[in-house]
Amino acid sequence: MTSAAEGAGFATMWRELAAVGRHAGTGGYRRYAWTPADADCREWFRAQAEDRGLAYETDRNGNQWAWLGDPAAGDAVVTGSHLDSVPDGGAFDGPLGVVSSFAALDELRGRGARPRRPLAVVNFVDEEGARFGVACVGSRLTAGRLAPQDARDLVDADGVSLARAMEKAGRDPAAIGPDPERLARIGAFVELHVEQGRALDLLGRPVGVASAIWPHGRWRFDFRGEANHAGTTRLVDRRDPMLTYATTVLAARKKARLAGALATFGKVAVEPGGVNAIASRVRGWLDSRAADEETLAEVVAAIEHAARERGARDGVEVSVVRESFTPVVEFAHDLRDRLAALLGAGSPAPVLPTGAGHDAGILSAAVPTAMLFVRNPTGVSHSPAESAAEDDCLAGVSALADVLEGLACR
Amino acid sequence: MTSAAEGAGFATMWRELAAVGRHAGTGGYRRYAWTPADADCREWFRAQAEDRGLAYETDRNGNQWAWLGDPAAGDAVVTGSHLDSVPDGGAFDGPLGVVSSFAALDELRGRGARPRRPLAVVNFVDEEGARFGVACVGSRLTAGRLAPQDARDLVDADGVSLARAMEKAGRDPAAIGPDPERLARIGAFVELHVEQGRALDLLGRPVGVASAIWPHGRWRFDFRGEANHAGTTRLVDRRDPMLTYATTVLAARKKARLAGALATFGKVAVEPGGVNAIASRVRGWLDSRAADEETLAEVVAAIEHAARERGARDGVEVSVVRESFTPVVEFAHDLRDRLAALLGAGSPAPVLPTGAGHDAGILSAAVPTAMLFVRNPTGVSHSPAESAAEDDCLAGVSALADVLEGLACR
Repeated sequence: MTSAAEGAGFATMWRELAAVGRHAGTGGYRRYAWTPADADCREWFRAQAEDRGLAYETDRNGNQWAWLGDPAAGDAVVTGSHLDSVPDGGAFDGPLGVVSSFAALDELRGRGARPRRPLAVVNFVDEEGARFGVACVGSRLTAGRLAPQDARDLVDADGVSLARAMEKAGRDPAAIGPDPERLARIGAFVELHVEQGRALDLLGRPVGVASAIWPHGRWRFDFRGEANHAGTTRLVDRRDPMLTYATTVLAARKKARLAGALATFGKVAVEPGGVNAIASRVRGWLDSRAADEETLAEVVAAIEHAARERGARDGVEVSVVRESFTPVVEFAHDLRDRLAALLGAGSPAPVLPTGAGHDAGILSAAVPTAMLFVRNPTGVSHSPAESAAEDDCLAGVSALADVLEGLACR
Repeated sequence: MTSAAEGAGFATMWRELAAVGRHAGTGGYRRYAWTPADADCREWFRAQAEDRGLAYETDRNGNQWAWLGDPAAGDAVVTGSHLDSVPDGGAFDGPLGVVSSFAALDELRGRGARPRRPLAVVNFVDEEGARFGVACVGSRLTAGRLAPQDARDLVDADGVSLARAMEKAGRDPAAIGPDPERLARIGAFVELHVEQGRALDLLGRPVGVASAIWPHGRWRFDFRGEANHAGTTRLVDRRDPMLTYATTVLAARKKARLAGALATFGKVAVEPGGVNAIASRVRGWLDSRAADEETLAEVVAAIEHAARERGARDGVEVSVVRESFTPVVEFAHDLRDRLAALLGAGSPAPVLPTGAGHDAGILSAAVPTAMLFVRNPTGVSHSPAESAAEDDCLAGVSALADVLEGLACR
């Protein structure tokens, strides 16, 4: 297959996915796990596998696999990413990795490469956690990093459990759980992803290799006060949790800045939520990340301290629940160095850390794992404005093909 | 009818309404305009009217009326309130006035009183504005204080217009508008309402009379920033509107405190609303009230100034829209003084101002209007914890019967 034909294959796949789950008003994607938009993405994946004569299967947790070669042979080289999105997310976060994986297999075939190891493309389900609040559910379950009952009991904003959502999508929630045999068949996992920062742009390079993922987590802050009439309740008689929440939002920014870390409140839920009602409860979700776990713990503790201090003044109860946590991930050094060398025409490809969690980070504890990043000229991610140039996407496909060829065909 | 029988009638009506629109999880009421719960309340009203042989009618705006005597005779004495609720509201705000109105008519009959003027009970539709964001829609339309097209164009959180909601409820939205002929038939309007503060409790009195309603309004603050990934975007590269919102919430409290006014953010909407996404937009609704309009304007201007100042630092655009405004209402002094004298056994009933808006406030520009308040031992309102003792409710019924008798039968 020529490079032009490969580019055409990429563009065709990209076009097929472009309309799925896209909100006409915002232009962003709403591909949440086990929804109709997600089902359309999954159907697209199955069709891609079958069109290429790859052996298609879905594992017990709902992750999709497309195999070239015998899965049971072991020492497989697996590539892939996810197809779900954050609320009003961009087109690249996830889908670029899956589309590039199929395109890289096409390029390998075009090169006449003969794999000595099994190859597979994977679509991990529910990476973003947009619907049920926990990220990387598909890979966490498979790696034994999320208890099946805890997963089944997750609920979305409408009170629908993950178990019920899976049933409605035709899956058996009783079947979910760890899959060590499947992991044992994988010799290397490589995830290609759009960069979610501007490092490659600043370096002037289209493709880079990941060094590590910052430790990160989500904490739910519950602020409980007392609902009351906004027009008749004296200020001194109020127990208004919105004030405590607001103070905590500002404290999060300050503590993160002082520690060189990141802290964000991007989601909030208010009860009862009436314009003329003082809130009875405000729930805010903190996303925080830092270069090391000690710093991260200090930042979160400082934010919690500020929340409790203000809560005491406001007559508001504060409780904090850690909803998820992912320790620091150092990707396998030998695989990382091999990829950087494979991709460097002259000078090795740039090696960079990231603050974003990925299925690759979850799998890295059980499987030698690496990541490739494709340049993002604005650094914007988790937004409809997320972008990557077509030439850079095709450079990513070539790089991924080089990596797969180097790992599986030599 | 004996007093015991009258208490039984009140209790029966109260029980019939108790389950309508009550949310099992919160224990609060969700009776929003033109929803099935609202339809159940309206059906209850119609049945009450018909059971008593009152002439039932619905006006062009959907307000319900139950007449004793000839509506066309003029100089009518009208009493009533509303049956809709705020999100997770209490049982008393609104329904206490409607139930007490029917019970007071029963008591008048029991006393053998012979009305010389027409009497009516009214249920004003959509007083709380919980669904479409504008309070007192039914009375505003009738009084010509809300343009029909502006009302029809109001939309709820799901994008359903008020016009469409009325159609679905079997009403004709093209028919809505001012109703001066109806207002001209009313010689006095008296609304009984649970107190939304603790003044009567502190005074040790079960029933009081309103003096004035503070001017009040709703302002929508839009904070526009840029969505981005919470795990990869440097703090200095962010345009996070949550920070600007948080600063504005705290500024509102401070400015209100300094001015002896009230300012509350009880409702907020975030886009995209993902835990790991920096918000692109935060919308917060400010409810503010003060003893006079000049103070209110100063408080809102100071809050807006604080929002814009912080927005400039955050790279966040701030826009402010006044969604509704109600000027100060001084209830008719002669009617107010007459009520206070009628109710005082020895010493006149307490006369108190309120920060809460009411249909009575809307009507007061066109009709001599008064309000009665029933003691609320905690002052809590707009919450499931809202309460009033049964004895105080029955004292309210007797007081309202005294007022109706004094106004219409002597």
